[in-house]
Amino acid sequence: MGDLEPKKLLIIVESGTLDKLYCAFIMSSAAVAMDWEAHLYFTFWGLRMLRIGEMEKAGLDSTYKDLEDGLQKRLEEMKYPTPYQMLKQIKASGRLTIYACTPTMSMFNIKKDELIPEVDKLAGAAQMLDIASGSAVTLFI
Amino acid sequence: MGDLEPKKLLIIVESGTLDKLYCAFIMSSAAVAMDWEAHLYFTFWGLRMLRIGEMEKAGLDSTYKDLEDGLQKRLEEMKYPTPYQMLKQIKASGRLTIYACTPTMSMFNIKKDELIPEVDKLAGAAQMLDIASGSAVTLFI
Amino acid sequence: MGDLEPKKLLIIVESGTLDKLYCAFIMSSAAVAMDWEAHLYFTFWGLRMLRIGEMEKAGLDSTYKDLEDGLQKRLEEMKYPTPYQMLKQIKASGRLTIYACTPTMSMFNIKKDELIPEVDKLAGAAQMLDIASGSAVTLFI
Repeated sequence: MGDLEPKKLLIIVESGTLDKLYCAFIMSSAAVAMDWEAHLYFTFWGLRMLRIGEMEKAGLDSTYKDLEDGLQKRLEEMKYPTPYQMLKQIKASGRLTIYACTPTMSMFNIKKDELIPEVDKLAGAAQMLDIASGSAVTLFI
Repeated sequence: MGDLEPKKLLIIVESGTLDKLYCAFIMSSAAVAMDWEAHLYFTFWGLRMLRIGEMEKAGLDSTYKDLEDGLQKRLEEMKYPTPYQMLKQIKASGRLTIYACTPTMSMFNIKKDELIPEVDKLAGAAQMLDIASGSAVTLFI
Repeated sequence: MGDLEPKKLLIIVESGTLDKLYCAFIMSSAAVAMDWEAHLYFTFWGLRMLRIGEMEKAGLDSTYKDLEDGLQKRLEEMKYPTPYQMLKQIKASGRLTIYACTPTMSMFNIKKDELIPEVDKLAGAAQMLDIASGSAVTLFI
């Protein structure tokens, strides 16, 4: 890398469904494997999934509810990591920063000590936009 | 700013739910506070919310319907601005441009005079892509 | 164009609903008309829509189900192309590349020969991020 800055991927994780969490984490996993930095900013339903014990309960949204059992079974057969396991694997790379959205925390009255210990920072929209403007890729999921 | 162009945030607002409108508006609000330009391009369900009187009725999608009353009550307690109040506050900064998507207007047979007066321009996808390619951050919500 | 590289639009199509497919395809159509390259990376519900015969059945998500018949009828009256017709029109420009997400294919046990012939490449998240980092506009739909 020398003195070059690593590329950044920022994903604003607004959704809390299983498919969207996998999308965010599979892309983050690919990013850190390519020596990029990954930044995950959790807001709304995504933020709610950062509460301890919550990510393990992630399912599909009501449109796809009938596919949920089949998908869960298939993922078990494949021994696919759960979203939380995947998040911890990416965190272990040292290249992932996790942000919890402060406006959402107020709206839903969620306190920092309710969140999983992998959360690095609490941040508002201005800080998120700063990161976004320096990122190679920014996605809202 | 001198002769520097301000940074631009473009959000394509496809969704019409309360959470997504707040996401779009909270980010736009942060952007204008940082002296960025904010551009909101409303399409599909988002465009439908620009009809007069419609944004006031925004709710959550069917997956999260059971959380709707609790969230609305909490927002009232916090004296949080409604989405439309927030939109008008951002508009007052002079740094927000609001676009209504013309293909959506045809699809749903919506006329310009049905839309709130804050709409600045009617625009198609080509004009939107032009703005996107000059923006620091572009999100599809 | 001379030796200038064309601008690129990359859309990660995660959704499989009618409104989101139209958004992706209308923007791609505008992009190729502006001499941009369009890249559509289909994942999850979007990928499932690439199976032969599937896109023709696209509907709205459960929140908007009651608007589905009216919208379909209106689109027929307008003689609006269906999503698949639109996709083939854009493909005919020679400027559209269609990718199918390999992790999704494993998760849902979907084989290449089940997909429409317009698919150009199977690709994982790393290849997608490479394209994203060279794109003028990247959206997650």
